[in-house]
Amino acid sequence: MRICVLGGDGYCGWAAALYLSRAGHEVAIVDNFLRRQWDFELGVQTLTPIQPLADRIRVWQELTGKSIELFIGDVADYDFLSSMFEDFQPDTVVHFAEQRSAPYSMIDRKHAVFTQVNNVVGTLNVLFAIKEFKPDCHLIKLGTMGEYGTPNIDIEEGYIQIEHNGRTDLLPFPKQPGSFYHLSKVHDSHNMMFACKIWGLRATDLNQGVVYGTVTDETSLDEALINRFDYDDVFGTVLNRFCVQAVTGHPLTVYGKGGQTRGFLDIRDTVRCIELACLNPAKAGECRVFNQFTEQFSVLELARMVEAASRKMGLHVDVDHLPDPRVEAEQHYYNAKHSKLLDLGLQPHYLNDSLLDSLMNIAVKYQDRVDTSVFLPQVNWRNARNRRSKLQAAAAIAALESKS
Amino acid sequence: MRICVLGGDGYCGWAAALYLSRAGHEVAIVDNFLRRQWDFELGVQTLTPIQPLADRIRVWQELTGKSIELFIGDVADYDFLSSMFEDFQPDTVVHFAEQRSAPYSMIDRKHAVFTQVNNVVGTLNVLFAIKEFKPDCHLIKLGTMGEYGTPNIDIEEGYIQIEHNGRTDLLPFPKQPGSFYHLSKVHDSHNMMFACKIWGLRATDLNQGVVYGTVTDETSLDEALINRFDYDDVFGTVLNRFCVQAVTGHPLTVYGKGGQTRGFLDIRDTVRCIELACLNPAKAGECRVFNQFTEQFSVLELARMVEAASRKMGLHVDVDHLPDPRVEAEQHYYNAKHSKLLDLGLQPHYLNDSLLDSLMNIAVKYQDRVDTSVFLPQVNWRNARNRRSKLQAAAAIAALESKS
Repeated sequence: MRICVLGGDGYCGWAAALYLSRAGHEVAIVDNFLRRQWDFELGVQTLTPIQPLADRIRVWQELTGKSIELFIGDVADYDFLSSMFEDFQPDTVVHFAEQRSAPYSMIDRKHAVFTQVNNVVGTLNVLFAIKEFKPDCHLIKLGTMGEYGTPNIDIEEGYIQIEHNGRTDLLPFPKQPGSFYHLSKVHDSHNMMFACKIWGLRATDLNQGVVYGTVTDETSLDEALINRFDYDDVFGTVLNRFCVQAVTGHPLTVYGKGGQTRGFLDIRDTVRCIELACLNPAKAGECRVFNQFTEQFSVLELARMVEAASRKMGLHVDVDHLPDPRVEAEQHYYNAKHSKLLDLGLQPHYLNDSLLDSLMNIAVKYQDRVDTSVFLPQVNWRNARNRRSKLQAAAAIAALESKS
Repeated sequence: MRICVLGGDGYCGWAAALYLSRAGHEVAIVDNFLRRQWDFELGVQTLTPIQPLADRIRVWQELTGKSIELFIGDVADYDFLSSMFEDFQPDTVVHFAEQRSAPYSMIDRKHAVFTQVNNVVGTLNVLFAIKEFKPDCHLIKLGTMGEYGTPNIDIEEGYIQIEHNGRTDLLPFPKQPGSFYHLSKVHDSHNMMFACKIWGLRATDLNQGVVYGTVTDETSLDEALINRFDYDDVFGTVLNRFCVQAVTGHPLTVYGKGGQTRGFLDIRDTVRCIELACLNPAKAGECRVFNQFTEQFSVLELARMVEAASRKMGLHVDVDHLPDPRVEAEQHYYNAKHSKLLDLGLQPHYLNDSLLDSLMNIAVKYQDRVDTSVFLPQVNWRNARNRRSKLQAAAAIAALESKS
């Protein structure tokens, strides 16, 4: 199968590209390196020292004999995207190429506008390109569990049967996203459903939970293949950050009460879920939704788990409850369904002691690279300003200006 | 009350601005004349000869002694919008300033992207400007009944109480919009709900039905104040088009079976609804939704009504069923609630014989201006192309390029 991974230089995209390549598929990576540019903008870097993409791909080929084709450009640039389609002729497009940080989208107006324009236009372009160049191509698009918010009812996978005044219909699950980023994914979801309906496209919308871990069977083959490990306040995910905080003797930064409950999954399950979706494509005209996570945890539960793992390593760890910089329920009902990928054969890697130990060990191994100044949240939902003096949003502005 | 009407040179915006001005409010109009530019792009014009905005406003002042302030610019340009807020200090912003044609958004990729970027960025800018300059300002935003699509259950006003697996919650009504334009309004709605939640803004989302008619008490004061009357395939609305077709001896162009049922309202009710929303603002933090229409009709019912009115005038009219250029249900359940504006005091002008006669009379009066070549649908949902040679989308491209 010819699989094109949009955003293949990013955290999930890189791991997925290698996994699919090793599994014998013809893989192409499309990337414009915006993710690396955001690190420069924010003055942060991944804990793990990642290599330039060209080097990563060269080493992968040397080690495995498998080549990965490279297309450097922006999916929001339709001419570029068209040439990629004409050249590579993908059977499947896996679309990770979006701005994926909620805090980044909440920095100020420019970052909010950039996030929504970048993500919505990119996905519109992908939909139009599939229609124009490869109508049978299967689109696998990364959504987020955050699209649903935290309703007081069970969360279904994309659609819900509603009975109302004696009539029933199967309708899109109501969305209550919690940031301009999460909103951009809701916009994408609606656009995709519509494109599948009117053009008969086939799409899978993967509403992914929070991903943790960095090692996969592929990235561990060589230091040059190492994946990102983000722990900063903007792009870092919570479990990664807790591990780095524990190892460097800093209190774990729980936002508010910590009762915020979310779906989580191991990066090794992310890549397998992508392959399962590739191997079992949606039908023509179908826009199906899978909730892609394996376990639910509250933030405080994760903090307690990291505390326990630290104790085993002889580290003492405190838990700090900071005022929540986000506007969100700190205690709430949460029960999200996630059976469709299990039905397709996913065998989850659950978060257990040994995995947590391995995460802690990565934090220990690279602790010299830790910048403790990026632990505390700098972006506050209530204060999103028009202008943020420290950040020039150069990437945001440059990207917007090229959106014609 | 200081009321700023964004898009005040357009069809609903112009009528609303005059109505609010006459009612004694301080009114400002913000417009960038894109609506007039789209007429040039498409090679069409309103049936009624509208005057340049500056002339309209001068005549209004001469006749009534009431001045309307003018701000010429694009709400997608935040610097411009900021200066308007600082200068005019609105208590209420009425936001009509969006690309509002479903067929226009379906012409090709550029028009789809333009519609979504223009509408979403414009509304994001308005939300950020209110937060930055006038947090207590009430935003009245035009949505559309088309956001809901045609679900097989009753359509509520914005939110629906859902009981599911023994638990209940009041959630946003699921949306199934039918064009990239309608999708843009769904995106706006989600963005607005979020901004009200995190910043405590007050907003009213008016999901308006299809508007008909052109005459209001204000626009009829002088020929120079006349409002638009669009009947072309892209910006024209169905009842206007049927009247013009009947008067010029052309068959009424019903798409498919004609069972498509929608909410409709008289332009005189549109302007009163806007005032009712102004006078009864949403609470801080509230994003309320009113369904703004007064009656439901199927397209075929409208055709039959126009046929009957024509017969009274001695005109013979045929009804043609064209293949539906849209992808939509041609027969479906439709029952949409619309009690909230009635509760606030709306006294509807229902579509009856005398009103239909007056519409027909406008069509007769201006029949020399009719271009019969714009009756037939040129834009097909299934064929939305990347490039459309005839239309250069100059406005779309120029506007996109200025979006930074």
